[in-house]
Amino acid sequence: MRGIDILITNDDGIQSEGLKVLREALAPLGTVAVVAPDREQSTTSHAITLHRPLRVQWVSDGFYAVDGTPADCVNLSINGILKNRPKILVSGINKGENLGDDVTYSGTVSAAIEGTLIGIPSVAISLVARENFKFEAAASFSRKIVSLVMERGLPKDTLLNVNVPNLPANEIKGVEITRQGKRVYGDAVVEKVDPRGKKYYWIGGDILGHRHIPGSDFDAISRNKISVTPLKLDLTDYDTAEKLRGWNF
Amino acid sequence: MRGIDILITNDDGIQSEGLKVLREALAPLGTVAVVAPDREQSTTSHAITLHRPLRVQWVSDGFYAVDGTPADCVNLSINGILKNRPKILVSGINKGENLGDDVTYSGTVSAAIEGTLIGIPSVAISLVARENFKFEAAASFSRKIVSLVMERGLPKDTLLNVNVPNLPANEIKGVEITRQGKRVYGDAVVEKVDPRGKKYYWIGGDILGHRHIPGSDFDAISRNKISVTPLKLDLTDYDTAEKLRGWNF
Repeated sequence: MRGIDILITNDDGIQSEGLKVLREALAPLGTVAVVAPDREQSTTSHAITLHRPLRVQWVSDGFYAVDGTPADCVNLSINGILKNRPKILVSGINKGENLGDDVTYSGTVSAAIEGTLIGIPSVAISLVARENFKFEAAASFSRKIVSLVMERGLPKDTLLNVNVPNLPANEIKGVEITRQGKRVYGDAVVEKVDPRGKKYYWIGGDILGHRHIPGSDFDAISRNKISVTPLKLDLTDYDTAEKLRGWNF
Repeated sequence: MRGIDILITNDDGIQSEGLKVLREALAPLGTVAVVAPDREQSTTSHAITLHRPLRVQWVSDGFYAVDGTPADCVNLSINGILKNRPKILVSGINKGENLGDDVTYSGTVSAAIEGTLIGIPSVAISLVARENFKFEAAASFSRKIVSLVMERGLPKDTLLNVNVPNLPANEIKGVEITRQGKRVYGDAVVEKVDPRGKKYYWIGGDILGHRHIPGSDFDAISRNKISVTPLKLDLTDYDTAEKLRGWNF
């Protein structure tokens, strides 16, 4: 593959409209390659495939499909199929938000985590909607933030998690730098019986709402603002570490 | 399932010796249930299964196998098959370390993240070895730390990531509260051709070493100490957030 500036991936899969929109939006900023899973990979989190080989399929000009996870796509692109290291990795535009604790499950964010681990400035971009996706504002903001990150860089081991309201651009009330919020999850697990009389379970994963935390990603979105949350790879809880030093091990 | 105090899971799968050792070690502290994946689920990260039903199989007294990920096991146990909320979740004893950036890929740690999200104090325990596993010290320390957490609790949204050297107990030099370290990953992706002449790739995932960070998990392990790292669910990089507020969006 020829030298590229911008690597795009996602977790919705190679067919997703979000990829095409993002590629078009970023084309003015440099040469773009799209390397994405060959099917939907939502909630795969940061899974990486080490136990089997991976295949890469040429789909169309600049679009490649991988039979793996979003993290696989990033690792394989940068360490395998791309001739050069891209200047930036962009994951998205995801059809659906990645707010609060979503980031620990999200394939979209995990691709950006993998990029960051490999040392490439990385941005995850999600559209806050379940249907009737309006990509225009997200596409336009993607170009802006990618251009800024290419110019200014990001701190080592930090990525950006961007969520854009599903509104026409003129109804968006600006950009806010936020903190990761907190979801309130439902506890529904459905228990049923299959046609052969055997019991099965299905995890509901219902979302009941979120805590009201001023300055959080949820808070910004609720005020029709674009949310930009810097996330870091170091999960250490330094305050608790201090307390644990008083425990009698 | 009867009322239980301690829920055990892992990512090595229901057959792993680490589960049996852990269950035996924790039995004096309360009633234990083991709910673990029916096969190995390493590097599945925090993947959760929402697109298909899950099956639970009774394996033997107190041992249940689920055809899903470690996070599935935790969610399904607490929200589905257990009659009561356990007092603590323990994930392990993993055959292999979970140090530094491993925590973002680790099924072992992800189970503890899922437990924490659900509001159960959670501890991940790993043995730093690839072969010749010596579980005695890890088992004995598991009992100690689980007993302490049951007594004192953990801060909301914080879990413990424990790594134990693969040494006889009398060669272990104590316990250290640490911070998450940094791996140095290799960039090897192997490109080969299959028997039908088609190209395939295999992610090497080689680990070349780690950065020397005093007080890190790697640092403690290198001095034959048990490493206890508190990890938090909030990934926000607050320092970078301040800087980003100066960007011209």
